[in-house]
Amino acid sequence: MMEHNLQHTLSLLTCTPVALNALLRDLPDAWTLQNEGESTWSAVDVVAHLIHGERTDWMPRARMILKFGETKAFEPFDRWGHVRESQGKSLAQLLDEFARLRSESLSELRRLNLQPDDLARRGRHPAIGAVTLSQLLATWAAHDLTHLHQISRIMAHQYGQAVGPWSAYLGVLQCAGHSAP
Amino acid sequence: MMEHNLQHTLSLLTCTPVALNALLRDLPDAWTLQNEGESTWSAVDVVAHLIHGERTDWMPRARMILKFGETKAFEPFDRWGHVRESQGKSLAQLLDEFARLRSESLSELRRLNLQPDDLARRGRHPAIGAVTLSQLLATWAAHDLTHLHQISRIMAHQYGQAVGPWSAYLGVLQCAGHSAP
Repeated sequence: MMEHNLQHTLSLLTCTPVALNALLRDLPDAWTLQNEGESTWSAVDVVAHLIHGERTDWMPRARMILKFGETKAFEPFDRWGHVRESQGKSLAQLLDEFARLRSESLSELRRLNLQPDDLARRGRHPAIGAVTLSQLLATWAAHDLTHLHQISRIMAHQYGQAVGPWSAYLGVLQCAGHSAP
Repeated sequence: MMEHNLQHTLSLLTCTPVALNALLRDLPDAWTLQNEGESTWSAVDVVAHLIHGERTDWMPRARMILKFGETKAFEPFDRWGHVRESQGKSLAQLLDEFARLRSESLSELRRLNLQPDDLARRGRHPAIGAVTLSQLLATWAAHDLTHLHQISRIMAHQYGQAVGPWSAYLGVLQCAGHSAP
């Protein structure tokens, strides 16, 4: 495992929208609109959730840490906020919007020119308490990966029967999700 | 869940190399060369494994089903064949090679112009017994997804400590792998 490294975080956060675009844009709806059953998400829902995170989670919380420290808790994140984000939009529009918002977020993050002292600053999460700016940024990167992990699992689920006896060999089909959703 | 659909399989198999390229090519080695501990794979190992699959697994087995049916078992797949594939090669070279081999595989698959009767034909897997061509092709797609799932987990693992108390919220960090490796 590595310590948090701002350049590594920026690299990963830059690649995610491009990778999701390459994976999802040209797929038929059968892959991207299906979910894993009641109250679970489709790949399209996940992209809308990532958009909602760009608007209300990552950079807004980074700004709060820098401005208020631990004196003011973050706004709770609305885990169903993606429903509004995706209304009336195609997957292609959502992918474009995610790429644009992510690019704006990263421009702002780079402009902050964060130094080690800044990264060590603490804020207050409404549920888990004291967190550092460094932990927030590492979580942003790991959050991209948790949703790439989820998208690959959602899509593999669609072929859970079609693979026949090979299902025992495919780890992704044994994945229980680990977090809701 | 959906039944196997050859066009959906082709769509997904086409997107995977582009998505892996977009995700991995520009990342620093700290993301792509690290694994999850002893005897586990890095993202680079996974790309080499996918290359080995193009050479020895998917289309070779499809040809065997069409030529021999159940009369001749597939060659066992060498799960450590990626070690040879990756020797002396950069990640960029491996990504290029995977894209080229996958493109050749899919050209051959399209040329076969498989009909429902072909897809129902059976072959013999050395360990799991009778399998259909349809199941083999569905497994090829799901196998791409199991390795995208794995890569996202391997990379998230690198930030397992860096995210601090957020680790409880990140499903990918709870994923035990489900299959070896």
